[in-house]
Amino acid sequence: MPDITHEAAYRAHTNIALIKYWGKRNPELFLPVTSSLSLTLDAFYTETRIQFSPDYTRDTLYLNHKQMEADEMAHISHFVDLFRQEAGVQAACQINSINHVPTAAGLASSASAFAALGSACNTALGLNMDAQQLSTFVRQGSGSASRSVHGGFVLWHRGEGDVSSSSFTEQIDDANWDIGMLVVAVNTEVKPFSSRAGMQHTVETSPFYQQWPAEVEKDLALMLEAIEAQDFTTMGEISEHNAMKMHATMLAAKPSFTYFQGESILAMHLVQKLRREGLECYYTMDAGPNVKVLCRQSDMAHIKAAFAIHFKPDQLIEAKPGPGPEAIQWKEAN
Amino acid sequence: MPDITHEAAYRAHTNIALIKYWGKRNPELFLPVTSSLSLTLDAFYTETRIQFSPDYTRDTLYLNHKQMEADEMAHISHFVDLFRQEAGVQAACQINSINHVPTAAGLASSASAFAALGSACNTALGLNMDAQQLSTFVRQGSGSASRSVHGGFVLWHRGEGDVSSSSFTEQIDDANWDIGMLVVAVNTEVKPFSSRAGMQHTVETSPFYQQWPAEVEKDLALMLEAIEAQDFTTMGEISEHNAMKMHATMLAAKPSFTYFQGESILAMHLVQKLRREGLECYYTMDAGPNVKVLCRQSDMAHIKAAFAIHFKPDQLIEAKPGPGPEAIQWKEAN
Repeated sequence: MPDITHEAAYRAHTNIALIKYWGKRNPELFLPVTSSLSLTLDAFYTETRIQFSPDYTRDTLYLNHKQMEADEMAHISHFVDLFRQEAGVQAACQINSINHVPTAAGLASSASAFAALGSACNTALGLNMDAQQLSTFVRQGSGSASRSVHGGFVLWHRGEGDVSSSSFTEQIDDANWDIGMLVVAVNTEVKPFSSRAGMQHTVETSPFYQQWPAEVEKDLALMLEAIEAQDFTTMGEISEHNAMKMHATMLAAKPSFTYFQGESILAMHLVQKLRREGLECYYTMDAGPNVKVLCRQSDMAHIKAAFAIHFKPDQLIEAKPGPGPEAIQWKEAN
Repeated sequence: MPDITHEAAYRAHTNIALIKYWGKRNPELFLPVTSSLSLTLDAFYTETRIQFSPDYTRDTLYLNHKQMEADEMAHISHFVDLFRQEAGVQAACQINSINHVPTAAGLASSASAFAALGSACNTALGLNMDAQQLSTFVRQGSGSASRSVHGGFVLWHRGEGDVSSSSFTEQIDDANWDIGMLVVAVNTEVKPFSSRAGMQHTVETSPFYQQWPAEVEKDLALMLEAIEAQDFTTMGEISEHNAMKMHATMLAAKPSFTYFQGESILAMHLVQKLRREGLECYYTMDAGPNVKVLCRQSDMAHIKAAFAIHFKPDQLIEAKPGPGPEAIQWKEAN
């Protein structure tokens, strides 16, 4: 048995951006071109335990009980290094991580994964960083993960220049009101680009990307007002428009590309149809084919029933606003 | 029997823009925001006969043997008025028009329709306008129709200010080389917006539209060079990029909309796959769900075979470069 000197386990939830993060101004520090805003969701989360021990000879990670290859570990070790350096600790670690994401969803888990891992590092190494500071560390694992350091509606500030500490996240509203999200998991063969590659290709080749930062600035200001006023209609309209502008920047890249699949189009058309029929809901999409339908939680049952005509039950996942990271008791059975 | 004093019949072919026409600067005169460039196709055409007679009390049009309603006739009569005024003729007319477009394709026929009708008016009324002048008249029926006044590769000059005569079309290359187009007719329920409505909504609400004219200017210059050099690769890359930028402006409209259907996405992905496999082809799309695949005519059989795995035979129509309008003998059996 190794001599475990530092250990902690955390659960963190994923988040869906309503104002998108699309483009880095500093890839080393994961500093974004724009601010962004998200809703943390209860339905998708990662549970992660980290153990530091002088007995370990190298960092290892078991993701869903499967050991990660050495070459994939480099980014993880680099991430944990940020915390080790801060704590003045040099011990290697063993990480166990379980993604609780419905299989069909294929949702990117890096947001919940790095938020859980960063939270566990923070506690295991006794750093006692507050969420704001923690978010600037978590950001360097995965940009969007920095938003999963809080629950509810979360604002990620772009920050200034190359100053890492200026680009932090904060909760702006606990979302403890009539808000929900139906995640429509869309069948796909192969993801054509990773989100990182798609982002980079767009920034480098899309003539419409130059307009993107100004659009985000306008959308974000309106969105903050709408959340403050709990104005669901404006929130929905801004979210949908912001997401589609992001996807428009990709379509205009050279060569053009899209994350849309046939079923994505179907889901978007279905949302438009429901709206015309008076059932208010809006779509957003990230760097993948899934469609996320923003709705009032009180309308969820009706909206899900309408989607159930076209999609299989395991393609439709209801989500409510979720909390920030929580310390958990690690169960070996996990 | 009416006393027919002026009569002519013409066949005109449709055209597909490689550099798109998207936005009017003067809706009355159909003056475009930008120049555009197209390829006239042999496979889709309209045959139209016009007869002027002092015995007719009003204009009538039989489209595919069905009489057009009075309220739909207003635009047609207004169009014929342009020619009547030029000729100093006041007689009413009867028009018979047959669209020769494979049923499943559902391709917009206004380009070939107004080119055929305008050509028939020109001859029937003895105006003897050359193709350049005729194109400025035809343009006022349907903007893209002005390009169907020529065969092969056709350039539509945006022109200057509100001067109708400055916005004409000309053939820049007869396209008598190894070029073809596979039209993939995509199933759809309802077209969400007419192209005219979609264009207007985009111009008014899309933040990316402001970038569009500069993009067209760049693309057009490169395209003219590529056609001159018969550089198929550059032609294809520019066409695909230009079309997707146009569709990106729609996606960024508020509310967002798209003409993409599930099968459109499938067709685009298939083109990308064929390219990865070394079979060079490129897609373009207009204000509808169909996908047009630009290819070398010598590769057509291979490309069609690849599409035949996913699409039904009547969804796949081979097209070659087509000619400008031709006078025809009208057959009553038409």
